[in-house]
Amino acid sequence: MDEFDFIKSIQQKNYVQSSLIKGIGDDAAVFRQNYKDTVTSVDTFVEDIHFSRNTMLPFHIGYRALAANISDMAAMGCEPAYYLISIVIPKHWSEKDLADIYLGMKDIATENKMDLIGGDTVSGKELVLSITVIGFVDKDKSRYRSHAISGDIIFVTGTLGDSAAGLHILMNHEKETQEKFKYLIDRHRMPTPRPVFANNLKSISRIALNDISDGIANEAAEIADASKVTMNIEYNSIPYHDLLKGFDKDMQKEWKLFGGEDFELIGTVPKKDWDIVKKVAESTKTKVTAIGYVTDYTDSNPNVFLHEDKDVSILDKSGYTHLK
Amino acid sequence: MDEFDFIKSIQQKNYVQSSLIKGIGDDAAVFRQNYKDTVTSVDTFVEDIHFSRNTMLPFHIGYRALAANISDMAAMGCEPAYYLISIVIPKHWSEKDLADIYLGMKDIATENKMDLIGGDTVSGKELVLSITVIGFVDKDKSRYRSHAISGDIIFVTGTLGDSAAGLHILMNHEKETQEKFKYLIDRHRMPTPRPVFANNLKSISRIALNDISDGIANEAAEIADASKVTMNIEYNSIPYHDLLKGFDKDMQKEWKLFGGEDFELIGTVPKKDWDIVKKVAESTKTKVTAIGYVTDYTDSNPNVFLHEDKDVSILDKSGYTHLK
Repeated sequence: MDEFDFIKSIQQKNYVQSSLIKGIGDDAAVFRQNYKDTVTSVDTFVEDIHFSRNTMLPFHIGYRALAANISDMAAMGCEPAYYLISIVIPKHWSEKDLADIYLGMKDIATENKMDLIGGDTVSGKELVLSITVIGFVDKDKSRYRSHAISGDIIFVTGTLGDSAAGLHILMNHEKETQEKFKYLIDRHRMPTPRPVFANNLKSISRIALNDISDGIANEAAEIADASKVTMNIEYNSIPYHDLLKGFDKDMQKEWKLFGGEDFELIGTVPKKDWDIVKKVAESTKTKVTAIGYVTDYTDSNPNVFLHEDKDVSILDKSGYTHLK
Repeated sequence: MDEFDFIKSIQQKNYVQSSLIKGIGDDAAVFRQNYKDTVTSVDTFVEDIHFSRNTMLPFHIGYRALAANISDMAAMGCEPAYYLISIVIPKHWSEKDLADIYLGMKDIATENKMDLIGGDTVSGKELVLSITVIGFVDKDKSRYRSHAISGDIIFVTGTLGDSAAGLHILMNHEKETQEKFKYLIDRHRMPTPRPVFANNLKSISRIALNDISDGIANEAAEIADASKVTMNIEYNSIPYHDLLKGFDKDMQKEWKLFGGEDFELIGTVPKKDWDIVKKVAESTKTKVTAIGYVTDYTDSNPNVFLHEDKDVSILDKSGYTHLK
């Protein structure tokens, strides 16, 4: 199959987005969005750096790559609408495997009512998947990391550490154990980004949001940094799945704080709006948990404090240091 | 320099596009375009497949990659506004070389009043540059390949074959000859896409447009195919640069018909609008040349006829066949 045939084979017969004017088939795609703001980002995945065929099927590779992009849209409070795929294909990848990557993307795209509107298919030495995603958000309702203010409640969606635990199990355990922990493995391979929940928070005037792609320690630090505040996280409030309980306490902690790719959200809202967050969580069947609070930033303060029982640590991307 | 520092180093301090709300720095960029249609496409370039360091400096690699994307916008009749870069960086590329790639992009971006609003920087085995471009066009003024009608005049911008000739000289001739043909080499390394010309044709209600990235034979066939028409091209009308004259006639022909990457435009317009095209060409300092005419498509007709003196050939992507 040549490039042209391949593109034809993945081309959608019908598009679902009403703003679309021209899909795949010309020099570019065209859409019209006269009421909302448009949001866009790009994310790139390289074989054996961002994913491995040892732990994922081609279907999962596609699914998870687009999930990561949708998660960026969720972190902006935005509804994903379109995606464009650039793919570098090495000779050793079969047509069937490539088709499965696209099927994985199509699966989560359909779930999120997204249309594939462009792409480029080229050959190369290693598989590279680069996805551009485009979404829409009500005017001035984009959610930035810089919107946290002292006094806000810090919350997260879902449970944290699932994906890292799933990957650990895939890499270190036999098939039988893998069966038992299938839920965590699925969370690693087919994560659930939260755009519907995030987009439904639109009645709240100010929210800071970030998605948890590199672990909550990192994402909380990004909010702290952008908003010039101190984030206080209660370790014992961090939600996690029952299946994590059997593992070593230190591993659990590592997964919950630094385990990336859960693609859940961390956010901060004014206390008065916390009830709205809980209601939206209920109506969109999303688990939300308050895990801390925002305080003022001072020069002598670090960005993120981790509170655990009576201990306080300074948390950063790479680890934590107990305060004396 | 880590990824974060590198992104900071390429981040624009000021943005020129008035529709931009949020540039680089959060999970995604945000813009508001409530009056025009939005146009988007992605193009990917792999080292030693799409470009080589033997014939280009890193600056040229960046310049030409973005030029190719801008050319897609021109082919839609659209003004480019934004770009997002995904780059896979192998270890053997130095920081200086990478910075030069970005400088090349920035150079042509500035020329075209474009803002860099997103990107992803990852490591890998070979250099891959994937660019997403976003532009705006007046409502319903996108120019499709499917808009040609029997009776239209076929035209092209600029001169054809320059880029292929430039590449040939770079690969086969010594420095001294290269000096003499610097113009053609520059056309290969730093082509000039035509978005301003294309966008200024907006008073014309119907135009078919395509950009010449793979050679005019291929692009004319794409218009013929999408519009279900026959394209008649007069070989002797195809504009070419004086510097091509010294080369073998067959090579000239190869370059003019099949030489890609000139990033000029081929289009068709109703005869009554030809004067407007000429006026816009004059006001935007763009060379335009009528090179043929569109006739009806019939089942027994091929898509593109090449007329040369009294000979007629069937022209397709890969070559031409004389008609008996």
